[in-house]
Amino acid sequence: MTSRKVVELFYDVVSPYSWLGFEVMCRYRNVWNIELKLRPAFLGGIMQGSGNKPPGLVPNKFLYMTKDLNRLAEYFDVPLQAPSDPFEAMFKKGSLSAMRFVAAVQEKEKAGDKQVEQVSRELWRRIWSEDKDITEPASLAEAAKKAGLSDSEIEDVLELSTSKEIKDKLKDTTEKALDFGAFGFPMMVCHVDGKLEMFFGSDLSSWPTALVRILLYCASFTNTYDVKVTR
Amino acid sequence: MTSRKVVELFYDVVSPYSWLGFEVMCRYRNVWNIELKLRPAFLGGIMQGSGNKPPGLVPNKFLYMTKDLNRLAEYFDVPLQAPSDPFEAMFKKGSLSAMRFVAAVQEKEKAGDKQVEQVSRELWRRIWSEDKDITEPASLAEAAKKAGLSDSEIEDVLELSTSKEIKDKLKDTTEKALDFGAFGFPMMVCHVDGKLEMFFGSDLSSWPTALVRILLYCASFTNTYDVKVTR
Repeated sequence: MTSRKVVELFYDVVSPYSWLGFEVMCRYRNVWNIELKLRPAFLGGIMQGSGNKPPGLVPNKFLYMTKDLNRLAEYFDVPLQAPSDPFEAMFKKGSLSAMRFVAAVQEKEKAGDKQVEQVSRELWRRIWSEDKDITEPASLAEAAKKAGLSDSEIEDVLELSTSKEIKDKLKDTTEKALDFGAFGFPMMVCHVDGKLEMFFGSDLSSWPTALVRILLYCASFTNTYDVKVTR
Repeated sequence: MTSRKVVELFYDVVSPYSWLGFEVMCRYRNVWNIELKLRPAFLGGIMQGSGNKPPGLVPNKFLYMTKDLNRLAEYFDVPLQAPSDPFEAMFKKGSLSAMRFVAAVQEKEKAGDKQVEQVSRELWRRIWSEDKDITEPASLAEAAKKAGLSDSEIEDVLELSTSKEIKDKLKDTTEKALDFGAFGFPMMVCHVDGKLEMFFGSDLSSWPTALVRILLYCASFTNTYDVKVTR
């Protein structure tokens, strides 16, 4: 029996704050000795289901987020760079096909989560670093290729990603996030001593806050300063 | 000549996250050796001027904020407790007369900022801990009394608080905050090496984040872990 705390991370590759949270959690899962469960979901469904509005629609918020993301990207050493047209990329093109693809990668991957981690990262790199498309099958295939999937694996995943099974899986995860109280991503659910603690990594910069709080809730970390000592 | 970094803190006593930020900054200004400048302003003017909407209007956000504020209050040891009717207290009654009163206290106080600090804290304690009014002159007088002001000082401040001079002062500070890019409070402006760095202590939990970042920008602190070692 393991005493490792379980932390579920709900994310969507359309969200730059999710990328920061994802990288930090992937780095620290060993340091903190937690069991990180990746939960690819659909942010569009969260916004619609919760009635929330994207923060970037308020001009001062948009300006601040741009600045804030640059500072955080430098702090966490993530090569984040806004797409040339963020509204086009985030709201017009969106991430539905990309997140179905990630869900399909996860469905196919039986042992561990290396593939789902790598494919998610490569999709973020496309939209949030290289200003590239993440909606076309060729784009998804390219990301998966970089993530180390074979051509036949990619073909299988692409086919699976349009199936009812996967559409339902992504919908279920998104609904589960809403049930946990989500109104944006990243969102973490920590299982601590039989209780659930939900942490929203706000649209606007609360990631390290959430991390500090997870540290307070997770008994199995080395010391509370890891997050800064080894960043 | 002093080498202390200047940090301006814009706040309104109607905002519970501002209270947390205020207490943390008041505690740490000595540890970090910064010059903290208190900037009482009017959050209602910020929301109107920036076109932002209160986060509590989204049900899942409201539920999360309640939980989040409880966690933060415990973490920072601030006796924060939501008023019985937060919407009535925050939006119907509001804080215009209270913030004019705080601005008047600041105007009258020539040496230091002990009075403006104490009066602000007592007003927060009324609305965000004891579920008491902060709009009536008697309420403001009671808070000032607890803060240590004499009866004659209170009388002077109450009169001054309705003057055009003070109305304009509060308006000016609020407009200055908008010019800095504010869309909510608390908001900090750090003066670092001749440059201004703005940090929004988000409506939703980014205070410690902002603190960590201020630490990164302020060269004059003892070490980066003070925020947690001595909380």
